[in-house]
Amino acid sequence: MSLENIACNKSFGGWHKRYRHRSSTLACDMVFAIYLPPQAELGKPLPVLYWLSGLTCTDENFMQKAGAMRMAAELGLIIVAPDTSPRGMYVPGDPDGAWDFGHGAGFYLNASQAPWNTHYRMHDYVVHELPALIEASFPASDARSISGHSMGGHGALVCALRNPGRYRSISAFAPISQPTACPWGEKAFSRYLGEDRSTWREWDASLLIAQAEERLPLLVDQGDRDNFLEAQLKPEALQAAARAAGYPLSLRLQAGYDHSYFFIASFIDEHLQFHARALG
Amino acid sequence: MSLENIACNKSFGGWHKRYRHRSSTLACDMVFAIYLPPQAELGKPLPVLYWLSGLTCTDENFMQKAGAMRMAAELGLIIVAPDTSPRGMYVPGDPDGAWDFGHGAGFYLNASQAPWNTHYRMHDYVVHELPALIEASFPASDARSISGHSMGGHGALVCALRNPGRYRSISAFAPISQPTACPWGEKAFSRYLGEDRSTWREWDASLLIAQAEERLPLLVDQGDRDNFLEAQLKPEALQAAARAAGYPLSLRLQAGYDHSYFFIASFIDEHLQFHARALG
Repeated sequence: MSLENIACNKSFGGWHKRYRHRSSTLACDMVFAIYLPPQAELGKPLPVLYWLSGLTCTDENFMQKAGAMRMAAELGLIIVAPDTSPRGMYVPGDPDGAWDFGHGAGFYLNASQAPWNTHYRMHDYVVHELPALIEASFPASDARSISGHSMGGHGALVCALRNPGRYRSISAFAPISQPTACPWGEKAFSRYLGEDRSTWREWDASLLIAQAEERLPLLVDQGDRDNFLEAQLKPEALQAAARAAGYPLSLRLQAGYDHSYFFIASFIDEHLQFHARALG
Repeated sequence: MSLENIACNKSFGGWHKRYRHRSSTLACDMVFAIYLPPQAELGKPLPVLYWLSGLTCTDENFMQKAGAMRMAAELGLIIVAPDTSPRGMYVPGDPDGAWDFGHGAGFYLNASQAPWNTHYRMHDYVVHELPALIEASFPASDARSISGHSMGGHGALVCALRNPGRYRSISAFAPISQPTACPWGEKAFSRYLGEDRSTWREWDASLLIAQAEERLPLLVDQGDRDNFLEAQLKPEALQAAARAAGYPLSLRLQAGYDHSYFFIASFIDEHLQFHARALG
């Protein structure tokens, strides 16, 4: 549980910090970023929003580009941003060097197939190891919410739907809503999970939502000029499944917005306020 | 005056756009970014804040990291961010490939020495060519303010102090306040302007402020944990010169903040509000 601080920047009266640590779940060193709002100085445990980034990202993209710290400081919310996959010279990546599998593309699942199953266990890292580390090392309570973008939106949905009781609310920007039926998901799942598609079901939000044990506040924003909307993201599948299951999904189609961080920045304040309400 | 649109992202109800154009001043192709707030759709000319970035930056850093668009949308303010130097394979850079001279380090001056004087004329580009292009191509008025960071803070100060009547207000984050007496400035000026130091005086804000013809609202923020504070930035020189000249400088030392965009993001709203007041 030793944490090496590798960056520290004052921001909106609080602190943006980056840490390196050895992850036993992932069997490699990992870096995460945390935003500690000014209220953290008082020592009272604060609620935590876990943010899962999309393909190719690290812990840095959200912290640098989302403009989230102003509102997090106002709300007294900690934000934790892990990396998007295990990394390092001993962690195998995409054999062709592609950006949509392997390093930067862990898909927030536990791989079952060799050689991926040694390191690619991002679900357990995000849901268990990282929160335990955060709650032991910072003035962070066990009131957790989860959000993410694209692959990370998929991750946020799946982590929360698979683990009743762990989170208070879920949100996503342009999530990969049905990974079992889109090219990004099919490529990743066929390698991480193997060719038996029946095992894929437990990592697909549109399928998991049908059997969800709890109902959490769930907010999804999707730009209607997003280049990946039709082929990869498929929010209509999530919406149909939520409707059939009676799951209270608020899906908002945002006119003119694309897949970029400019889209995320435009609506992140509303997501933080949404989570803060659920976190109390 | 032909503009090639190379990026377009909806952001806070307005648009972030990037354009490539041929600059006659710099004798090369240049890229700039513009944020058009939602009010631009109404067609009435809006005031413009010109933002000058620091060493190594392009038009992208500020637009992606400063979190400025939320407040610009609220205030109805256009923001224009040029690149930090001429670029291209025919534009000479630092002979040793250093990051503090040449490409990404134009210092917002007009070079007098060969080979730099062919392309390195960022002052004339920022003060004349770019605003003429912006005002002819977008719903932008001639109500201009100027701001910047580090090398760009120096640029903002010098552009405004040298050109009475062109700007309504000036602000800067961690500006290089006395480039004639710091390593970054001495390296750049000795090459762009030559070894005769008497020619350097007209590009140094701490010297220019003594003979300023007009008094503009001037706001400077400086972090007290900035690694470059003592050796490179020297805000005390600017403050002493402003005090001697009776120039109304508001210099704020911000406790705990460093030289990063986290610092800029923390105070950009106040700078935008400051400029909006001056722009009417």
